[in-house]
Amino acid sequence: MNGNRFGRLFQVTTFGESHGEAMGCTVSGCPAGLELSEDDIQGDLDRRKPGQSMITTSRGEPDAVSIKSGIQDGYTTGTPIGMVIQNKDARSGKYEPFITAPRPSHGDFTYSAKFGTRNWGGGGRSSARETVNWVAAGAIAKKLLAREGIELKAHVNQIGDVEAPAVSFEEMLEHSEENDVRCAHPETAEEMQDRIAEYQEEGDSIGGSIYFEAQGVPVGLGAPRFDSLSARLGQAMMAVPATTAFEFGLGTEAAEWTGKDRNDDWEFDEEGDPVPVENDHGGIQGGISSGEPIYGEVTLHAPTSIPKTQQTADWETGELTEEQVIGRHDPVLPPRGVPVVEAMLALTLVDFMLLSGRLNPDRVDGQPGEYDTEYHPSNPNNQ
Amino acid sequence: MNGNRFGRLFQVTTFGESHGEAMGCTVSGCPAGLELSEDDIQGDLDRRKPGQSMITTSRGEPDAVSIKSGIQDGYTTGTPIGMVIQNKDARSGKYEPFITAPRPSHGDFTYSAKFGTRNWGGGGRSSARETVNWVAAGAIAKKLLAREGIELKAHVNQIGDVEAPAVSFEEMLEHSEENDVRCAHPETAEEMQDRIAEYQEEGDSIGGSIYFEAQGVPVGLGAPRFDSLSARLGQAMMAVPATTAFEFGLGTEAAEWTGKDRNDDWEFDEEGDPVPVENDHGGIQGGISSGEPIYGEVTLHAPTSIPKTQQTADWETGELTEEQVIGRHDPVLPPRGVPVVEAMLALTLVDFMLLSGRLNPDRVDGQPGEYDTEYHPSNPNNQ
Amino acid sequence: MNGNRFGRLFQVTTFGESHGEAMGCTVSGCPAGLELSEDDIQGDLDRRKPGQSMITTSRGEPDAVSIKSGIQDGYTTGTPIGMVIQNKDARSGKYEPFITAPRPSHGDFTYSAKFGTRNWGGGGRSSARETVNWVAAGAIAKKLLAREGIELKAHVNQIGDVEAPAVSFEEMLEHSEENDVRCAHPETAEEMQDRIAEYQEEGDSIGGSIYFEAQGVPVGLGAPRFDSLSARLGQAMMAVPATTAFEFGLGTEAAEWTGKDRNDDWEFDEEGDPVPVENDHGGIQGGISSGEPIYGEVTLHAPTSIPKTQQTADWETGELTEEQVIGRHDPVLPPRGVPVVEAMLALTLVDFMLLSGRLNPDRVDGQPGEYDTEYHPSNPNNQ
Amino acid sequence: MNGNRFGRLFQVTTFGESHGEAMGCTVSGCPAGLELSEDDIQGDLDRRKPGQSMITTSRGEPDAVSIKSGIQDGYTTGTPIGMVIQNKDARSGKYEPFITAPRPSHGDFTYSAKFGTRNWGGGGRSSARETVNWVAAGAIAKKLLAREGIELKAHVNQIGDVEAPAVSFEEMLEHSEENDVRCAHPETAEEMQDRIAEYQEEGDSIGGSIYFEAQGVPVGLGAPRFDSLSARLGQAMMAVPATTAFEFGLGTEAAEWTGKDRNDDWEFDEEGDPVPVENDHGGIQGGISSGEPIYGEVTLHAPTSIPKTQQTADWETGELTEEQVIGRHDPVLPPRGVPVVEAMLALTLVDFMLLSGRLNPDRVDGQPGEYDTEYHPSNPNNQ
Repeated sequence: MNGNRFGRLFQVTTFGESHGEAMGCTVSGCPAGLELSEDDIQGDLDRRKPGQSMITTSRGEPDAVSIKSGIQDGYTTGTPIGMVIQNKDARSGKYEPFITAPRPSHGDFTYSAKFGTRNWGGGGRSSARETVNWVAAGAIAKKLLAREGIELKAHVNQIGDVEAPAVSFEEMLEHSEENDVRCAHPETAEEMQDRIAEYQEEGDSIGGSIYFEAQGVPVGLGAPRFDSLSARLGQAMMAVPATTAFEFGLGTEAAEWTGKDRNDDWEFDEEGDPVPVENDHGGIQGGISSGEPIYGEVTLHAPTSIPKTQQTADWETGELTEEQVIGRHDPVLPPRGVPVVEAMLALTLVDFMLLSGRLNPDRVDGQPGEYDTEYHPSNPNNQ
Repeated sequence: MNGNRFGRLFQVTTFGESHGEAMGCTVSGCPAGLELSEDDIQGDLDRRKPGQSMITTSRGEPDAVSIKSGIQDGYTTGTPIGMVIQNKDARSGKYEPFITAPRPSHGDFTYSAKFGTRNWGGGGRSSARETVNWVAAGAIAKKLLAREGIELKAHVNQIGDVEAPAVSFEEMLEHSEENDVRCAHPETAEEMQDRIAEYQEEGDSIGGSIYFEAQGVPVGLGAPRFDSLSARLGQAMMAVPATTAFEFGLGTEAAEWTGKDRNDDWEFDEEGDPVPVENDHGGIQGGISSGEPIYGEVTLHAPTSIPKTQQTADWETGELTEEQVIGRHDPVLPPRGVPVVEAMLALTLVDFMLLSGRLNPDRVDGQPGEYDTEYHPSNPNNQ
Repeated sequence: MNGNRFGRLFQVTTFGESHGEAMGCTVSGCPAGLELSEDDIQGDLDRRKPGQSMITTSRGEPDAVSIKSGIQDGYTTGTPIGMVIQNKDARSGKYEPFITAPRPSHGDFTYSAKFGTRNWGGGGRSSARETVNWVAAGAIAKKLLAREGIELKAHVNQIGDVEAPAVSFEEMLEHSEENDVRCAHPETAEEMQDRIAEYQEEGDSIGGSIYFEAQGVPVGLGAPRFDSLSARLGQAMMAVPATTAFEFGLGTEAAEWTGKDRNDDWEFDEEGDPVPVENDHGGIQGGISSGEPIYGEVTLHAPTSIPKTQQTADWETGELTEEQVIGRHDPVLPPRGVPVVEAMLALTLVDFMLLSGRLNPDRVDGQPGEYDTEYHPSNPNNQ
Repeated sequence: MNGNRFGRLFQVTTFGESHGEAMGCTVSGCPAGLELSEDDIQGDLDRRKPGQSMITTSRGEPDAVSIKSGIQDGYTTGTPIGMVIQNKDARSGKYEPFITAPRPSHGDFTYSAKFGTRNWGGGGRSSARETVNWVAAGAIAKKLLAREGIELKAHVNQIGDVEAPAVSFEEMLEHSEENDVRCAHPETAEEMQDRIAEYQEEGDSIGGSIYFEAQGVPVGLGAPRFDSLSARLGQAMMAVPATTAFEFGLGTEAAEWTGKDRNDDWEFDEEGDPVPVENDHGGIQGGISSGEPIYGEVTLHAPTSIPKTQQTADWETGELTEEQVIGRHDPVLPPRGVPVVEAMLALTLVDFMLLSGRLNPDRVDGQPGEYDTEYHPSNPNNQ
């Protein structure tokens, strides 16, 4: 089993290794009738791609997505959407020393021990490069969610010991893409950037975290118990490379809160519906969305590939060796992780929108059984 | 939900439409350590491809497969195998009349009614062209099965009213690929070819059936009740385009057999193990393989695309129209269906080999935990 | 993997062996708001239960279902419906001779070889008794389908060489439950009964087949390619104990039909929608329901448990022995198989109704987000 | 979809509501040949059950499990294991006020809004009572893991602001069950108990956290990317009622660690195999187990049911009301959560042991194809 699939109704299936010929992603279960082109996807890919700033790897990848199927005249048809992204700038040579001498805290040893072999160039299948597929699929999910009034955003709220103060969703929308760190609090962003530079100079790397939020999520998403919204978000976010913690709502702080303080009383909203006075519950109650914003946080450990000298054990020679991972690597993961976290959030939510019948699985508009041709501008009969 | 996935541990995910840019297939769950190149796959693709004889469509498709991932130095690595097959010879123009006037007994109307739209060129996603993906995946499955001593083969045993006599597995291996019809009984093959020519001249098409057999299947495959070997073969074979019946063992004839006649007494084999005296049960007992050959039959209806004039209802104009489906089409499906049936048989069996622990899911040889580099001839350390 | 689960959204999970303490079935994914009690289920269980006539086993099982969860005040709540059916009349003693001497063409040997052991009493997990769970789950599915205007029915159309003429859906509804054979053609039913008696007297058993039909199925159900409606029906029906063939539409006869004859021209119905002139396609086109009735046939081989002496091989003593299976067994399977086939048809259809968004997965009426209490007659606030 | 299933090969399916007739759980995919009786399960159930101490609810439930299937002569048979646990002490009356006036931060509102109704007695399906099923299934998983040398344990490491110092695995085994709080550090346990008493007196409740660890996990478990070991643990643990955070390895602290500090150098162990010098990575590298202990932490918020007065909005009367949740409730969740966390850890690990071929899916010993009868002490032939 490869673990290359995500989603029950909105299904993503991926392939590709860091230094292979191409990355690829098949999205199944996207309803028909969604206007979609490569441009809708490219924006998020550009936010994730390497080489975009001084604090990302210098590997030069255009990450241009090519849609191979599932579209007719600019609209989805309900059939699988195949996407391929060519790898252009793979330089495997410098990974040869690590073939039998695993890099510390990478997947080198575990992959080799599991499979007896591995794609060793650039970390192969274990590389964060794989998330290019997730972001491509997530962009489609986002577009579907936007139609339903669901907006989501992430930003970097911690790098090392530099923490950003709480920001509003509007601030996230406005500021998080203004700086290379993707922190929605401009002053903190500068501080973060300085701190990253310090570690970079030392040949080291540093951890951090990403805050995410979704607005407009209707009440009723989630399939408790094992597939509660929090459980599935847990899986989605813990799959993000280098993640060591997932929190929603109060997260780890909840350990110190009393029931009275954390519980959110009910009042009525303008339409006379019950609505929580506060949102300490993080938008999920009993494993199901409450209609309040869903928010949480993901911790990413420091990149394991660092120029500093480390010790490894070469299983072929039987000798301990000193190694430096000189490749082109990010000194910190959260900035490029922001679109990845957004993608996983979007994929989780859109799957539950389908699972709860909020989105029709066959088509985004019209009624089942209608066989219109409105999505066919090229249909000569329509002209 | 797209229905583009097959298998629980050996997982196939496909995309592509008849006249789209490319067909594609991701195989997940293939263990590491299997020697594999495009050549291993191309042979079966060539047996399925159009334009190979007078009784297949003249569409010119090289059907050259390109493996994008999952291989290192000629061996599988246990990671997803992405494959892409370009479409080269799509001519959609002549399908325009059918956009709103569905061809009789095709998927034109049902796809449009389900999704409100469809890829109309060449039948789009409903085209038998999609099976190119299945055959590519099936070729990998066959190679894995061959390592375990499992061989399988199919041949055409009926075209219209021309039925082949029973043939042995050896005859199937020897003769089925000698003629364009893929019937392992040479005289019958000639008769079938004549019959096909007659229908072709009349602008009509004809049905037929495919017999399949697997040898060397170990006892113990199958997960009764809902995932019994027969149930999963049922799903696999009924997914083959144009299939209207699936039978195994005595099939429909079993209705007329008594228990005493059909039951297979037990005797001992040379090693002293119980073994059935006959194989009227078709290699499956209680939903689990018995160790005897698994055999059965699949009926394929006549191709629905025929030059003869047919009546359709144009939902745009509201008028009944006469139409001729003038595309390039097969007059009969079983000959090109043979590698497709073999592929589905192989995919079903390899999945159960993994599910029953007969094949290690991580690697085809070595022990879990061994991190050898034997599959890396290009590893400079190995030279 | 046990193969004890069926369905993607309407999910059935079963447990139980023929001579175990109880049979059980958990239905997940049934929407809330369906009025449901044990009475809704008991009717079909009674049609399946042993001891109901001279041509069924005399084992005395009341097969009384007890619902353990998922109901509030007589309506489903959207949470899992747990059901348990006690086994009352198990007499394992006479199965002892078969522990190491497998009965011909049963699952005795395959289960023991797969697992190294087995529940040997009454055939254990391989017994047709397991279908009591399917029928219980199917009864819920039928009730959901009926709300949507979908009706389905099966009857016995062949026993040995006695075949019933084609009957209408109305005749099936009217006559199939009038006689012990469950054949909707009264004269044929008598003939079948005579034939069964003959085999019974000889200590033998006989095969047969069941015809099924569903009316009112909307266009658009099915997820081609691997989860086409025909593929999933294939799995569902081939899982029915003793099944050796599944056919839909023309079935095996399609091999001899030309394209022109089999193709169904299109005309307009009264509402001006395209509709096929005939239904030779069996209600499924391109793997998706066409709106026409879905019909097909399932062949069941003769019961393997027969009084006639058979030879087996005792793997413990290493000796060939003669055995008679003297238990209480049916001389023919289709009569009690009728509710089982209906159940599998219902389970397949209801799953696709959910997968295509025709049925809301959370609730059968009302809108998502409404938190009414109308299903709570016992709610004191409502009185 | 109900979300009542967990696991891909070792599959758990549950039913039951807090005040329903019974809870139930079907375990599918447990290999044959495991010695198993109700006693093996009851121990963990007793650790989870209510009424065991002053800091748990006083509801009186014996939680006696009854195995209904899947066992022959004291050994598993590879077929589904059905288990039922009767509810004995449900008193729904005091929940009537909450039918239309949702309790703060419970699942009352979200369930009603999703399904339009709910089982309101005792919280129904959203009650932590449901975890009785998980613990029953987890006990079987633990027994399988123990055979493979995998041991696991959890203990309470934080209640409110009282944190336990780090303890060894051996200390966890020795001390965690000695006190009512289930904290393996005896002095801290006393402090925790005092703190709980304080909140209890105030009519309030308090949060806390659980630390877990697994020893003896072989290298190679996990299916990156989406089904990495960390991702699936994330899902498993976030499904635990009241969980707001999941961490493994350094958890949220990783944000402040540099790469050099967090990376674990490699050395050789006594057998000459590469082994990490430290275990800051938490036993998972690249999503796959490294052979080092797996450890992490789960945060549980304070119980939402508290005697203190809270405000709610009655959607029927349209009035804001004050309510007190006077039922029998725990003032803190981690103590009874310990066996639940252990169960989810065990279920996740055993599933991957099967998925990676470390455990044979059909049987725990012997070879596939062997049809011995050694598990049948009651077999008269064996005596």
